[in-house]
Amino acid sequence: MATAAIVVIGREILTGKFADENGPYLTQRLRALGIDLRRLAIIDDDVDAIAEEVARSAQHDHVFTTGGVGPTHDDVTFEGVAQAFGMSLRLDPDLRALLAKHGLVDEANLRMATVPDGAELVRAGGASYPTIRVRNVYVLPGIPALVQQKFEALAPSLPGKTLHAARVYARDRESDVAGALAALDAAHPAVDIGSYPRWGEAEHRLIVTLESGDRAALEAAVAGVSGLVDVVRVDAG
Amino acid sequence: MATAAIVVIGREILTGKFADENGPYLTQRLRALGIDLRRLAIIDDDVDAIAEEVARSAQHDHVFTTGGVGPTHDDVTFEGVAQAFGMSLRLDPDLRALLAKHGLVDEANLRMATVPDGAELVRAGGASYPTIRVRNVYVLPGIPALVQQKFEALAPSLPGKTLHAARVYARDRESDVAGALAALDAAHPAVDIGSYPRWGEAEHRLIVTLESGDRAALEAAVAGVSGLVDVVRVDAG
Repeated sequence: MATAAIVVIGREILTGKFADENGPYLTQRLRALGIDLRRLAIIDDDVDAIAEEVARSAQHDHVFTTGGVGPTHDDVTFEGVAQAFGMSLRLDPDLRALLAKHGLVDEANLRMATVPDGAELVRAGGASYPTIRVRNVYVLPGIPALVQQKFEALAPSLPGKTLHAARVYARDRESDVAGALAALDAAHPAVDIGSYPRWGEAEHRLIVTLESGDRAALEAAVAGVSGLVDVVRVDAG
Repeated sequence: MATAAIVVIGREILTGKFADENGPYLTQRLRALGIDLRRLAIIDDDVDAIAEEVARSAQHDHVFTTGGVGPTHDDVTFEGVAQAFGMSLRLDPDLRALLAKHGLVDEANLRMATVPDGAELVRAGGASYPTIRVRNVYVLPGIPALVQQKFEALAPSLPGKTLHAARVYARDRESDVAGALAALDAAHPAVDIGSYPRWGEAEHRLIVTLESGDRAALEAAVAGVSGLVDVVRVDAG
């Protein structure tokens, strides 16, 4: 299964000025595409912090950064990505020409065209402005509407895998069945089994989630869980 | 200003099964307390991933982990914290006695009492079950209602600083004022100035946020921004 990491860059999120909309959006979309998200970091607009996080990109198939690519003094994502890979920055003539079409030609705006040496411009889905990719790192903007537009243009090119999932809602206290669930998890290595206690729900006190690329393996594990707990209901997904 | 990091531990968040409620809650509360959140990482229930993230704790005054402290096979936060600090695990007699009161005595449940050697039990705000602290790392549960209860009990003991804040809503395009804002930011070192373009809002296309521990410095910077942009309105906070 392909893996991914998300790096949300923005002091405005850490200070609670704006809620992060990009992380939850990309999380859901990656799951739907069958890509395993392994890590989501929200970090400051700081070159060293960005470089450190992006330098981990070799651990994943795809990395998506959001934010920090505008014209202002705190937009330092390209610097951070360049530092992560030991690249220098270069003024890209194609990006400069695109910005100039919109009248964006002063020094601050040229920051948006100053990208790591080694950046590729990905023109997917007929977008008028390309997405910048450096190795396996897609550098997305911060504005949620633009992130969504750009990600959807890229999505068809991202390899995924269909996952089958189920949820068992149960009346049991997690602590009463934890040992038995651990044994069941060990007995079903092809199925990812999670157990989540709930508080204050009407009927169930526990949700057991199951996921697998193999439908038969999933069904066998669901049968195993259902024999173990006091089932309220079983849902797909 | 005291700094903090949040480590949200939970595969269920990365797979999009549950939305993260703890990160946004703690983000807002830390801000209100005047503590500077520098990093929020959402990671897998994986001992190495937890250890790596927690090992960064010396960079911050306070670290809060959430999740991974229940009785099931994927609850490995205590192992991860112990590994981060090169500590071994020990069965804590006080925690064991507390769990036994609730009838939680089997092997799976004893995981909840098996904490890093060096853990302190923090009994704040009259909570019936203590919060586990290891050095500057508070190990919180994953269930949002419990996280909030425990954090609020701890909050009075966390040192903070009052921040003054303002927002200037402007009609300008960010790209038209970015250069001038950068100069203004440099001229007001005691004020943290951020600039956020908005799309699709009725009147404003830009929000300039300002924050400072010094009210007079803040007011001077707000006056500077107001002289620079086409102001729709100025808000406190």
